[in-house]
Amino acid sequence: MAPNTLNDIPTPALLLDIAGMERNIRRMADFFAQSECKLRPHFKAHKTPEIARRQLAAGSCTGLTCATVGEAEIASEFCDDILIANQVIGRDKVSRVAQIARRGIDIKIAVDSIEGLDQIARAAEGAEAEVGLLVDVNVGMPRCGVQPGEPAAALAKRISDTANVRLRGAMGYEGHVVGIPDRTKRAPAAATAMSALSASVQAIRDAGLPCEIVSAGGTGTYDITGRIPGITEIQAGSYVLMDTAYGKLDIPFEQAMWVLGTVVSRPSPLLCVLDSGHKSCTEDHGNPSVRGIEGASVMFLSDEHASLNIPADSQLKAGDRVQLVPSHIDPTINLHDVFYALDGEKVAGVWPIAARGYPEQRGA
Amino acid sequence: MAPNTLNDIPTPALLLDIAGMERNIRRMADFFAQSECKLRPHFKAHKTPEIARRQLAAGSCTGLTCATVGEAEIASEFCDDILIANQVIGRDKVSRVAQIARRGIDIKIAVDSIEGLDQIARAAEGAEAEVGLLVDVNVGMPRCGVQPGEPAAALAKRISDTANVRLRGAMGYEGHVVGIPDRTKRAPAAATAMSALSASVQAIRDAGLPCEIVSAGGTGTYDITGRIPGITEIQAGSYVLMDTAYGKLDIPFEQAMWVLGTVVSRPSPLLCVLDSGHKSCTEDHGNPSVRGIEGASVMFLSDEHASLNIPADSQLKAGDRVQLVPSHIDPTINLHDVFYALDGEKVAGVWPIAARGYPEQRGA
Repeated sequence: MAPNTLNDIPTPALLLDIAGMERNIRRMADFFAQSECKLRPHFKAHKTPEIARRQLAAGSCTGLTCATVGEAEIASEFCDDILIANQVIGRDKVSRVAQIARRGIDIKIAVDSIEGLDQIARAAEGAEAEVGLLVDVNVGMPRCGVQPGEPAAALAKRISDTANVRLRGAMGYEGHVVGIPDRTKRAPAAATAMSALSASVQAIRDAGLPCEIVSAGGTGTYDITGRIPGITEIQAGSYVLMDTAYGKLDIPFEQAMWVLGTVVSRPSPLLCVLDSGHKSCTEDHGNPSVRGIEGASVMFLSDEHASLNIPADSQLKAGDRVQLVPSHIDPTINLHDVFYALDGEKVAGVWPIAARGYPEQRGA
Repeated sequence: MAPNTLNDIPTPALLLDIAGMERNIRRMADFFAQSECKLRPHFKAHKTPEIARRQLAAGSCTGLTCATVGEAEIASEFCDDILIANQVIGRDKVSRVAQIARRGIDIKIAVDSIEGLDQIARAAEGAEAEVGLLVDVNVGMPRCGVQPGEPAAALAKRISDTANVRLRGAMGYEGHVVGIPDRTKRAPAAATAMSALSASVQAIRDAGLPCEIVSAGGTGTYDITGRIPGITEIQAGSYVLMDTAYGKLDIPFEQAMWVLGTVVSRPSPLLCVLDSGHKSCTEDHGNPSVRGIEGASVMFLSDEHASLNIPADSQLKAGDRVQLVPSHIDPTINLHDVFYALDGEKVAGVWPIAARGYPEQRGA
């Protein structure tokens, strides 16, 4: 039995403010409506088809970005242009990508190695399909990607010489930059990162090869990287619901999700304990904040409890509801099966987080 | 299609070594077989019925401990003696507990407030059932619990004067103690914490009230708290599979679970990237360790990647499999839907983590 109002929602639970989310979607779509560069919203942030559908419906989008094959399988049910902005490695995974391609979806994956190229090419051959590839260029973060320039062009050449795959472009994610709060530092850092991507694109084109898609960026750099000539799309995700980490940046998006908890104990005047621990709200970007209670802060999270420091004169007692503002939405959302989507205090929808976790485990 | 061997398991995934787990279960059961005190294994650690059934079958157990109502509902399908070692607050939650009691399950919950007592008593009345209560005593951790001694006895008296609930005893969790690596510091800290619980039990009995169950302890203190006279049961969970945090302690349990990842990139000699990020292996107790690769360590986790520092002469390449040893099993297990239970390299079972997340959301 679905709850009707905020007060009926069992805790802990994810709350989503539909109006705030729609404003975020509109602001981002408006930015890209005036730009050569387009948006490819990142499905990994929320894994929720209902949200992704609304992002796409707002326009200015090329398609969706995904991080995993499980996400892409679910996204392909309602979107026919998908980029897995990640290496896809392993027999099972590449064959699942090939099956998506076989269904006529324009699916592209990132690749940064010969092994990765060979795996996807074999799988595509087996499925009698063609899979698009983007050369993944390392633009400064110690993670995936080939070195910029000639190494990127060499991999592009190899891709172009391989059957059952098609070279579609290049990508480089400046993940080490997107969270820098100060724009005067973030902007030059993004420019440095993107110069490595642009040099790679140039080297690929100099080799006589196509580079139609140049994909980069995130919520923190959408209006920096998104204005660099030659970048064709931005992979932003968090803007749609926001968190306290991105809330420190000067970007025009509002907080539109919270973790609802119940006070289970008020053991002393200065201490209040909620049922929303780090199994409901992750702390990988630091403790969450407390919404709308002056002087309240999270002291620490346990698995199933949030211990809050509160002012001694607070009237909070067992049974009251308290909302936390997550520091990082992607992994927090990944802990829940549904969003309770609110119109004011009314529950207007219970939206499945369909790609939560590893959907393939649920079919195993 | 379930995988047959370790090599077929899609990553990231939770691996469980059945033989190692069975040895841990046996060691713990043997300890309590020789003791007045018994074990109440904590279901929250793994949320997996197949594991809990084996813990109960090994003997020396009073029943199961749960942290949430959702866990208790699932545990009650195969266990008729359950303690929710946590405050249960909220109309929906107390009524679900009352329904478990109505089915004839001997269910008990912790209580530390009049509000909590009144809520469960009303729900039990509505269900024409009786629910057992333990007075939750604060033994030093800044979380739930009444103050020790007279406040505990006062709440016990109030419980005993209330219809539809029954005073069953007291509990106090020394969560601030269980992880202290050095036994010469851990043992006196546990003794201090338990003296607060013992004083409360004495005050309850001095008031002429029963205190049949005295529940405390965890994996780090099972053989310390479990030897303190008057403690009747220990709520240990992590011992069954272990993690690197508890691995620092001098306790006789072996690591029996890992997170399996695939190398997706080897962008440079000293760097290797896996597909097992913190959406598959939490970092709330620090980075996981790398299993069985000399000189390898986790540099950082992203949502979907683990960036490893590795020796330059390592032969690791895209497609190879690497196992991480989690620093904290409870929240790590909570990220997955299944365990791949191994007999050597053979997948002997795919065990549902049935109580993962908030099962009530899956019925919403």
